[in-house]
Amino acid sequence: MPHSSEKARKYSRNHAERFRHELHEFLRIPSLSGNPAHGGDVKRAAEWLASHLHAMGVENAKVMRTAGHPVVYGEWMGAGPDKPTVLVYGHYDVVPAEMEDGWHTPPFEPVEKDGKIYARGATDDKGQLFIHVKALESCIEADGGPPVNVKLLFEGEEEISSPNLLPFIKTNQEKLKADVCVISDSSMRAIEEPAITYSLRGMTYIEVAVRGPREDLHSGFWGGATHNPALALAEIISKLYNRDKTIAVPGFYDDVAPISPEERKIIAKTALSEDQFKDATGAPAVWGDENYTIRERLSARPTLEVNGLWSGYSGPGPKTIIPAEAGAKISCRLVGNQDPEKIYKLLKQYIESIAPPTVKIKVSLVNKGKPALIPYDLPEMQAASRAYRDAWGHEAVFMRGGGSIPIVADIYDLMKIPVVMMGYGLDSDGLHSPNEHYSIEMFHRGIETAIAYLQEVAALPRERTHAKPATAQAGKTRSKVS
Amino acid sequence: MPHSSEKARKYSRNHAERFRHELHEFLRIPSLSGNPAHGGDVKRAAEWLASHLHAMGVENAKVMRTAGHPVVYGEWMGAGPDKPTVLVYGHYDVVPAEMEDGWHTPPFEPVEKDGKIYARGATDDKGQLFIHVKALESCIEADGGPPVNVKLLFEGEEEISSPNLLPFIKTNQEKLKADVCVISDSSMRAIEEPAITYSLRGMTYIEVAVRGPREDLHSGFWGGATHNPALALAEIISKLYNRDKTIAVPGFYDDVAPISPEERKIIAKTALSEDQFKDATGAPAVWGDENYTIRERLSARPTLEVNGLWSGYSGPGPKTIIPAEAGAKISCRLVGNQDPEKIYKLLKQYIESIAPPTVKIKVSLVNKGKPALIPYDLPEMQAASRAYRDAWGHEAVFMRGGGSIPIVADIYDLMKIPVVMMGYGLDSDGLHSPNEHYSIEMFHRGIETAIAYLQEVAALPRERTHAKPATAQAGKTRSKVS
Repeated sequence: MPHSSEKARKYSRNHAERFRHELHEFLRIPSLSGNPAHGGDVKRAAEWLASHLHAMGVENAKVMRTAGHPVVYGEWMGAGPDKPTVLVYGHYDVVPAEMEDGWHTPPFEPVEKDGKIYARGATDDKGQLFIHVKALESCIEADGGPPVNVKLLFEGEEEISSPNLLPFIKTNQEKLKADVCVISDSSMRAIEEPAITYSLRGMTYIEVAVRGPREDLHSGFWGGATHNPALALAEIISKLYNRDKTIAVPGFYDDVAPISPEERKIIAKTALSEDQFKDATGAPAVWGDENYTIRERLSARPTLEVNGLWSGYSGPGPKTIIPAEAGAKISCRLVGNQDPEKIYKLLKQYIESIAPPTVKIKVSLVNKGKPALIPYDLPEMQAASRAYRDAWGHEAVFMRGGGSIPIVADIYDLMKIPVVMMGYGLDSDGLHSPNEHYSIEMFHRGIETAIAYLQEVAALPRERTHAKPATAQAGKTRSKVS
Repeated sequence: MPHSSEKARKYSRNHAERFRHELHEFLRIPSLSGNPAHGGDVKRAAEWLASHLHAMGVENAKVMRTAGHPVVYGEWMGAGPDKPTVLVYGHYDVVPAEMEDGWHTPPFEPVEKDGKIYARGATDDKGQLFIHVKALESCIEADGGPPVNVKLLFEGEEEISSPNLLPFIKTNQEKLKADVCVISDSSMRAIEEPAITYSLRGMTYIEVAVRGPREDLHSGFWGGATHNPALALAEIISKLYNRDKTIAVPGFYDDVAPISPEERKIIAKTALSEDQFKDATGAPAVWGDENYTIRERLSARPTLEVNGLWSGYSGPGPKTIIPAEAGAKISCRLVGNQDPEKIYKLLKQYIESIAPPTVKIKVSLVNKGKPALIPYDLPEMQAASRAYRDAWGHEAVFMRGGGSIPIVADIYDLMKIPVVMMGYGLDSDGLHSPNEHYSIEMFHRGIETAIAYLQEVAALPRERTHAKPATAQAGKTRSKVS
């Protein structure tokens, strides 16, 4: 069957340059969702995208209102009702970018250099989103359409935690009905190692506030008899980990799904050596629970990190105070089958239990999101693997992502369909950083792979669709933490 | 002998109102030493003071240049070379004050209300400085002069750590030669409990920097295998104290002068109950080394405080990073006979020894100052006690101050004379705070007590002067930490 994608793939190769120039146009619109001053640009990007889809043959493509930035929606249902439907999710908004941050060329004037397109949004996510748009165009132009139905759902608020996406999906559940969801908003280590992400970590994010005296005290007048809140906070934080680098919160690991020997082998395919880890992070050493490999610690095991710490005076020179308060932001990355709400309760309970009576303490929830674990042996996942092998030209690895994209768990939970994360970016693309870029070669290989995936899905036995996988983990969280 | 102060004290009572009005004039000049925009005001305050002294009969009073704000110096040597000389130190500069901070009346428009003068500098230190000026005037007018020689040294940079005072003293050592130095820049708990401070704590102030990864890391991608610098810092800080609330740095207590049973009795006179401590600080409980009373912990024992703590993100909402670095400001209050430099070395050594190899650490010195311990049984100290008893009307307590005023150790060390700290302020005067005020009654009692002290010094056996006390502790620190 994959052979039937040949014509469309050829079409995409023949129109490669035009595709890139269209992408440039798209990249030129500074669709910063987080900056109200760019509200018009976000709208403009949505309209550009809808009208582009329209011109391409997706006649019903439209800009749909939400309480925030609009969604661009379009569908090509030409395969007919007996064929499966693929829902493609992507986002057309971007994070801020200023020359002063260290860009070598203006972030919204795309430049091609050394085989890369430099621009904000090049890899995250306009470039990857556009892969699916151009894959669809290629199928329409070469074959009169893909062998499956395709629904396109592109949001404009991903970079501000998708506050209106879940309500939109709920409202339009019938319209969005599909058999599988594909998301291309992730990356691989090297072009030779395309990755299918089958798991994302969840999150429990808390804030701990320690209060001591009414206000900052003179450390000369009151030092020696006052429990310093910064000291108390340090004492509390130091008790969150055991000596063996496991998390000391009782019950924390109770629901963690063990990693099967088979899965450990799969994870070992993306093994990270100690030197690779040190090179990548600049940290002087590897750290963590030695019962697990570095990659396992980074993806298949839960974590607890101090994200921020503050107390008293941090300016230049001395200030001799006993701070009135100290605070910390602490977040846990969770894995299947941990429940963010339960973990919050365990954390709160434990921290309150170790807090000394000499200070007052407050633990509050900042954010939470469920982990997602989508069985890599689902046919829709294996289809992605075949698409990479055939069209990308390299065997894909299945990997657990260390980060969190709550919308994945949301879609998985609400729509009861597999979510296949086919990343077409490179880890080194510099997303959210100055000089974000996207490999031209990967852009084109991505289009061919996306075409191939539609073919692969068309070839799947029809009865499999809509089955909810057994070990699924889904979430209800509203915000993307990433 | 004290009886001979009667005429001068009577004179001071008869001119009480004028004295206050003169103080108002002085307080009206916003002599903020820390704000370059007020440089002219600082100069104006110096000139006002010098000309006031001049008009009063201190004919050689003058404004003397330093590398910064000027010193006002004047002397009345009419007692003759066979009489002792008292050096009075004070400062005419003030800290900032703005209505927005919560002042009920403009800070540089003195208002008398409910027996208090409200103005920035009222108690710190213009009001207390002016006590000595008016005491001298009273002696001159009533008796043709005090029975001792008086040298007046008023600086304009105390609130910015006296950067030019020590050089000034060194340059003018011959001119400043005296038998005793009196400083009124401290306070008592209640008018019935005048206090003579015989000890001040020294200081070793350090900064600890912990570095992990090259830059902030994504906590999803790298969490679980990276030693979080904020966690590492918390672990280090948590090891600075033992469970019994003693400081865990080896050798820290080696040079601490034990508190004699006699001194413990003296300290017990200013005992602070647990409830008083909680009322004053708002802290939920007392804390510290239970082998010592609260007052002992606050003054006669060394401390270690975290003055500031910072790492990563402290804004609103979540940010999911592993911070690249974490830092803390940590300072120790030292007591006789601890050496700030040695304590710095011990701290650095210990912190480096407990720092894990998974992070990089840097310990640096921010500031240091030697403690001062002036034997309370010196005749010049006992003379102060008698002056309070006779003129203030209450028995004075000798107390150890918990804070640090390095200039005290400086004078003590350089000039080899006792420094007698006769505070005339109240702990509740609100120095450095909005609505700073000074009790009118204490202002007038202070003048009478200062007159009495000059009489008491005149009556001391002459051979005692210039002897360096045996247990003296002196310092070389340039900066006032307070």
